[in-house]
Amino acid sequence: MEPMVLHEYAPSGNCYKIRLTAALLGLPLERRHYDIMHGETRTPAFLQNINANGRIPVLQVGSRLLPESNAACWYLATGTPLIPDDRFEQADMLRWMFFEQYNHEPNIATLRFWKAFIGEERLTASQTAQIPAKRLAGEAALAVMNDHLAQRDFFVADRVTLADISLYAYTHVADEGGFDLSRWPAVQRWIDAVSAAPGHVSLDA
Amino acid sequence: MEPMVLHEYAPSGNCYKIRLTAALLGLPLERRHYDIMHGETRTPAFLQNINANGRIPVLQVGSRLLPESNAACWYLATGTPLIPDDRFEQADMLRWMFFEQYNHEPNIATLRFWKAFIGEERLTASQTAQIPAKRLAGEAALAVMNDHLAQRDFFVADRVTLADISLYAYTHVADEGGFDLSRWPAVQRWIDAVSAAPGHVSLDA
Repeated sequence: MEPMVLHEYAPSGNCYKIRLTAALLGLPLERRHYDIMHGETRTPAFLQNINANGRIPVLQVGSRLLPESNAACWYLATGTPLIPDDRFEQADMLRWMFFEQYNHEPNIATLRFWKAFIGEERLTASQTAQIPAKRLAGEAALAVMNDHLAQRDFFVADRVTLADISLYAYTHVADEGGFDLSRWPAVQRWIDAVSAAPGHVSLDA
Repeated sequence: MEPMVLHEYAPSGNCYKIRLTAALLGLPLERRHYDIMHGETRTPAFLQNINANGRIPVLQVGSRLLPESNAACWYLATGTPLIPDDRFEQADMLRWMFFEQYNHEPNIATLRFWKAFIGEERLTASQTAQIPAKRLAGEAALAVMNDHLAQRDFFVADRVTLADISLYAYTHVADEGGFDLSRWPAVQRWIDAVSAAPGHVSLDA
């Protein structure tokens, strides 16, 4: 496999997903840090050379660049048990990964970023006004996950797949965004199960 | 293949993606309509039997249910030329589909829905306050697409793939959300190319 570089901001759950996928598969990954708190992913050089969308993570494979965390996980896990072979299960795994980017991340990750990284007292008026809706939407996403996990150990296929990695990244630190996970016991049990997967690395590793 | 039913609201671009994928592949699809303007996807029966997340589209395959538009497209297109075989191209296609759900749909589709379906005068204060940010973010997404398409005919692999279908659905009606597509000529040229694909069906078909 070509050498791979992860362009990242380490505390980001989206970047962590890729590191966790690589760790579970035993794949080496060089890491290059950008300080998003100081605009290092919005410089002309970054926009020109790394990602025109101004975002991390980007997975570099040889000289090719792959933005979007869940797409990078897919690349790493192609042909491994982290992606089910069964046609319906594979689509169902992607279903949860799209749910993660649409219903989960914009609420749960954003509140964590606003609260634990920027600080509530530094938010704009527009951001502050969005907090109640994002909290309700984040709680709704956790409730959907909890209902699903009340009947099964993992999201699809009875084992850890990319759906679990993707949703685990921001769920297991949701308390940093003010979410009380004790309200969703099946989610808590699932967090423990993913944390116990062979090869697991922590967010701050 | 098992019989398939699309649970949908026909004017939704997310539902149209699935119909367009099925049409390009010549696959039959029964359609079942829900009026989201009257809460038909939030009833106890819908939440219990179709999608606990209260959203359309849902693709039903036999008795199994698959929410999330891009996951449904993936299911339909598995093993066809609409998904590249090459490992990097396949991940790169998913990259644009995640971009669509994260950077494109919440801005371009939402402004279309607010402006053309609900009506600006009926929006809540919180929705009205979000319009300028969503407009800027939608324009930024279109600019990223335009820069990419200035150098190639389609998003990946030199032919129509699910990346094009996913992004086409709301882009080709972005004017209904107040976006002036003449600002992004490469996007306009690409819209014409996707519209000319053999088997193409229109949003109102």
